[in-house]
Amino acid sequence: MIGVGTGPGDPELLTVKAVKALERADVLAYFAKEGRRGNGRAIVDGLVKPGIVELPLYYPVTTEIDKDRDDYKSSITGFYDASARAVAEHLEAGRTVAVLSEGDPLFYGSYMHLHVRLAGRFSADVIPGITAMSGCWSLAGVPIVQGDDVLSVLPGTMAEAELGRRLADTEAAVIMKVGRNLPKIRRALEAAGRLEQALYVERGTMTNSAMTRLAEKGDDEAPYFSLVLVPGWKDKP
Amino acid sequence: MIGVGTGPGDPELLTVKAVKALERADVLAYFAKEGRRGNGRAIVDGLVKPGIVELPLYYPVTTEIDKDRDDYKSSITGFYDASARAVAEHLEAGRTVAVLSEGDPLFYGSYMHLHVRLAGRFSADVIPGITAMSGCWSLAGVPIVQGDDVLSVLPGTMAEAELGRRLADTEAAVIMKVGRNLPKIRRALEAAGRLEQALYVERGTMTNSAMTRLAEKGDDEAPYFSLVLVPGWKDKP
Ligand SMILES: C[S@@+](CC[C@H](N)C(=O)[O-])C[C@H]1O[C@@H](n2cnc3c(N)ncnc32)[C@H](O)[C@@H]1O
Ligand SMILES: C[S@@+](CC[C@H](N)C(=O)[O-])C[C@H]1O[C@@H](n2cnc3c(N)ncnc32)[C@H](O)[C@@H]1O
Repeated sequence: MIGVGTGPGDPELLTVKAVKALERADVLAYFAKEGRRGNGRAIVDGLVKPGIVELPLYYPVTTEIDKDRDDYKSSITGFYDASARAVAEHLEAGRTVAVLSEGDPLFYGSYMHLHVRLAGRFSADVIPGITAMSGCWSLAGVPIVQGDDVLSVLPGTMAEAELGRRLADTEAAVIMKVGRNLPKIRRALEAAGRLEQALYVERGTMTNSAMTRLAEKGDDEAPYFSLVLVPGWKDKP
Repeated sequence: MIGVGTGPGDPELLTVKAVKALERADVLAYFAKEGRRGNGRAIVDGLVKPGIVELPLYYPVTTEIDKDRDDYKSSITGFYDASARAVAEHLEAGRTVAVLSEGDPLFYGSYMHLHVRLAGRFSADVIPGITAMSGCWSLAGVPIVQGDDVLSVLPGTMAEAELGRRLADTEAAVIMKVGRNLPKIRRALEAAGRLEQALYVERGTMTNSAMTRLAEKGDDEAPYFSLVLVPGWKDKP
């Protein structure tokens, strides 16, 4: 099994190693919502060789329900178990399975759920990918950290007070999982005195990417693929 | 000007876009210590086209002196100013200059000092690179963050108490700039109750890479290219 990082959107941001893995693979697995193709799969579209076996792994839940509920937890556990079995069948038959992962596989990526289930029984190589945050700060041309800066990567799902506390206690920050958390993120940045520096980037490195200073963004709309950058850089040697 | 991320060591971890940029460039610039070739330059060795103009930018200081001293600051500022002028001369003559940056250019990379000086006057594209931390956790097969985990990227140069405080206040951490800070880092991890989970990786993805649980590392030797991973992952859905 090979966990293949696809990077944040631009197909040219795949590594040479990832491209070679896709050439070598017999089976192409990827997580997606039912009826969708999945973003990782869309990124590699021009690289998929004819005749490869595709193994889409469809999430059981399409709308976000309370993640602390027991039925959510057991449903998602069962789904990852079943996905691991589906991949294992191919591995047992001697096939090389590439599992696509948007960005970097082991950085908030679903691939890790297969990795922890299968890496003991089968060889499991991970090819790192350009993370969404690297893609976004490169696109924006924003030095994110230098010298002895601390970088905090914060999920936008956190409680507002906690988010504000952490934003006030770090040189640089990246806020992931923005989406409908945007109004809360804005308030937390404001409370921490960091709103002025914050940059909002959506669909970074994809063809329809956009960015703006968050303080200047006029609405509260944010797609799933969006994040906020707070650069730490202050003194410029 | 193009800031080109070379990734952490394995030349196959360059992105397709970075490889194309090297094919297109007229001039190849990179920071290095006097008399050395520089790690970024070594990584791309097999990709440098014949006849390209090389522009090594040699740091004025080879031994680490106190970074808060005024003479260090003015010497390094002067060096970055002079480096920017050397690059600007080529840009003014219409040449494409690729500036190599180990890992990702805007993530603790020296390229940013050229970027902030030149991006206003010339076009300056940044091609993200695989960060050292992504390379290391992928090599180790360690899921670093999932779900709502916070990731703190901490320079090993920080004061011990501050490092310990931050390690106790985060799900996951990466400690950069290990080198001679290793004994201090070990103590801070111990104080925060996180030493057991810590993984030490040196020269990740290079040919001579090595890793071990930090608690099992018998000495205090660490090369410049080393970091510590503290995975956040606990509950496995
Ligand atoms: C489950 S995480 C996956 C992260 C990914 N594995 C990585 O390495 O960056 C999904 C989050 O990544 C961010 N994201 C992913 N792709 C993005 C893009 N192209 N532009 C902006 N944000 C993106 C969004 O914040 C989104 O909520
Ligand atoms: C000035 S920072 C450069 C970081 C780089 N721009 C990146 O994107 O990761 C240098 C630090 O990165 C880490 N580092 C760089 N390459 C590494 C490697 N191959 N293995 C382990 N650590 C590495 C070390 O902690 C080193 O002190």
